[in-house]
Amino acid sequence: MTPTLADCRAWDAEDSLAFTRARFRLPEGMIYLDGNSLGALPMATAGRLADLVEREWGQGLIGSWNDAAWMAMPARVGARIAGLIGAEADEVIAADSTSVNLYKLAAAALSLRPERRVVVSEPGNFPTDLYVLQGLCAALGLELCVKAPEALENALTDEVALLVLTHVHYKSGRVHDMAGLTATAQASGALALWDLSHSAGALPVDLNGCNADFAVGCGYKYLNGGPGAPGYMMAARRHHAAMRQPLTGWIGHAAPFAFGDDYAPADGVTRLLTGTPAVIGLAALEEGLKSFEGVSMAAVREKSIRLGELFIALAREAMGEAFDLACPADAQARGSQVSLRHPHGYALVQALIEAGVVGDFRAPDIARFGFTPLYLSFADVFEAGRRLKAVMDEERWTAPRFSERRAVT
Amino acid sequence: MTPTLADCRAWDAEDSLAFTRARFRLPEGMIYLDGNSLGALPMATAGRLADLVEREWGQGLIGSWNDAAWMAMPARVGARIAGLIGAEADEVIAADSTSVNLYKLAAAALSLRPERRVVVSEPGNFPTDLYVLQGLCAALGLELCVKAPEALENALTDEVALLVLTHVHYKSGRVHDMAGLTATAQASGALALWDLSHSAGALPVDLNGCNADFAVGCGYKYLNGGPGAPGYMMAARRHHAAMRQPLTGWIGHAAPFAFGDDYAPADGVTRLLTGTPAVIGLAALEEGLKSFEGVSMAAVREKSIRLGELFIALAREAMGEAFDLACPADAQARGSQVSLRHPHGYALVQALIEAGVVGDFRAPDIARFGFTPLYLSFADVFEAGRRLKAVMDEERWTAPRFSERRAVT
Repeated sequence: MTPTLADCRAWDAEDSLAFTRARFRLPEGMIYLDGNSLGALPMATAGRLADLVEREWGQGLIGSWNDAAWMAMPARVGARIAGLIGAEADEVIAADSTSVNLYKLAAAALSLRPERRVVVSEPGNFPTDLYVLQGLCAALGLELCVKAPEALENALTDEVALLVLTHVHYKSGRVHDMAGLTATAQASGALALWDLSHSAGALPVDLNGCNADFAVGCGYKYLNGGPGAPGYMMAARRHHAAMRQPLTGWIGHAAPFAFGDDYAPADGVTRLLTGTPAVIGLAALEEGLKSFEGVSMAAVREKSIRLGELFIALAREAMGEAFDLACPADAQARGSQVSLRHPHGYALVQALIEAGVVGDFRAPDIARFGFTPLYLSFADVFEAGRRLKAVMDEERWTAPRFSERRAVT
Repeated sequence: MTPTLADCRAWDAEDSLAFTRARFRLPEGMIYLDGNSLGALPMATAGRLADLVEREWGQGLIGSWNDAAWMAMPARVGARIAGLIGAEADEVIAADSTSVNLYKLAAAALSLRPERRVVVSEPGNFPTDLYVLQGLCAALGLELCVKAPEALENALTDEVALLVLTHVHYKSGRVHDMAGLTATAQASGALALWDLSHSAGALPVDLNGCNADFAVGCGYKYLNGGPGAPGYMMAARRHHAAMRQPLTGWIGHAAPFAFGDDYAPADGVTRLLTGTPAVIGLAALEEGLKSFEGVSMAAVREKSIRLGELFIALAREAMGEAFDLACPADAQARGSQVSLRHPHGYALVQALIEAGVVGDFRAPDIARFGFTPLYLSFADVFEAGRRLKAVMDEERWTAPRFSERRAVT
């Protein structure tokens, strides 16, 4: 039996995470199913940025690097992220973009395996991961070996320095076995680097429990840091002393304000930094992370699965024969998103947006819907299902205004 | 004769740039002589960020990548910078930190001279420039050759791929001969890359007039973009088709939203991009750049020189025998800053800050004062001289609270 609105309201009344909805500002009437692409605006962010700009910058000026602890922000924000991904506070630092961070961190990993010449990843990984690894391997004269998941184990020969995978697939939502694949990589002498962009903040991540070596992730999806927020890097403590990365800027120096001519790496993850911290972006990210205060990631995962299962049931009913699931049907194997394949996927997503249900499109034919337990209710998802049914029943995706593609991130 | 307050007021009354002071918010009573380290807050920035956060992000959410033209920001902000540095709009793009940008752009330059193995710079260059070049040369197996300015010409052999210099020296304020050094480098077959962090927005820069190949620069000094603002990269159009850089992220891809597995570089300077644009930081930088609307850089330079000369005259009188100029005495050879050497430089700067005159200290003994014509008056500089005299007369730097060093950027 497909759940009813009454069922959903009853679940909302008992929802242990219902209190976090008040931490976000969302447009009236919109069902936002794209927090996996750009997280919603926390209530506190605008006030924090106004204070940062008007008081810390405008009044404190240069003195705020010390007085407002701007210099400490990469480590302080990193420590907050560490709590969400199963790492120690001193193993995570926030900076730069996810792509730049992947370059630096993969290079740092490779510095620990100088005698090995191969990096392994999988086809269909989030494209920037593959592009960055292509650029890094070309620069260092290494080989990038891209193998489908079922062939990964055989690909992990004793020539492999590093395995780079995304924990939750951006399009299909499939969850990789982080512990198992890390162990397989390490058994061959390789290191494992995980991209957490589509998992951190959406489900429990236990980097140290999985003995992961390195991780990167995105600040503007489930972490609610705002458009183009800084990303982050995690390096297991056992690698800190030996790892080296090539973007050796002054903020990663052991004594940045001595202004000496020769680079010497700072201790710990600080050596992963390069340029001056992006203070305004880091402040917005810090506010986004505060949305998780008092929240158990186990509770987030449980609600996320229930929201996803509810949406699948409603979509199955709404779409009838057109229903075509493009993500794992097993909720345990799926991240916090549901993907549906549709021959008019782009136009369908546009028609839904017009109806106030915001998901997104991923080429060639995937309509993708993200479920963010901090600000979505069961009744919201019920309403999304109702609107999807109306769009399907009226075949609204056939409208001419949806025929043209625009860039959508 | 040292100028009087009446002289200064008369000059202010005739100052063609006096109108731009109203574009900035400065603390009451503070004479801010550190805009060369962190530019002051433009009046419009807080409002712009509030609108960006509350309306574009909070209401527009993911749709704002298109609807609010977030994707276009790196190019749009770059085009605005181009007008200040003698480049074409399509030759400049804003992104990342200055340090990350230098890595990418130096690598792009080196991709054009694959048969040459040496990079040349000068000792005492802004440290991050040397650190980044050290990291890049180590990664690529190249040699970094650091030569004093008078030995640069001899160092430019036919093995040199790239000359990297900072246009205005961060500590001494010395201005390099961009046209002459670029021509010398190019005569040997090398390329020239200029760091404009301490010149753009402070004096006229004419990259194309000097036939420069590449340039990077900082967004948070004279460009008033806020703490940790994105930097920028300039590549002369003649290099666009052939240049390659290794941080090949999705935003530098020819078709980022096709989500293909293989990297293909975008046209023009867009291929210098890597990760998702830092939208909030770029918006603040854009507001900073608007401070230059209707402003002639020739007028900025003329006023900057007059402010600097005035300060030197006042400091000479205030300091007597302790006066020790650590920057070129010839105003034409000096950027928009005045550096004074003092055995108790750190404590002197602290005592001045306490007196409401904010300069900064650069190891080991330099007190550095920046002059930003958009928001400083002649009367401000007169008042700074008066307070400097009081600090000197009373030897306030001997106070115990100034004996301990803290980090100052």
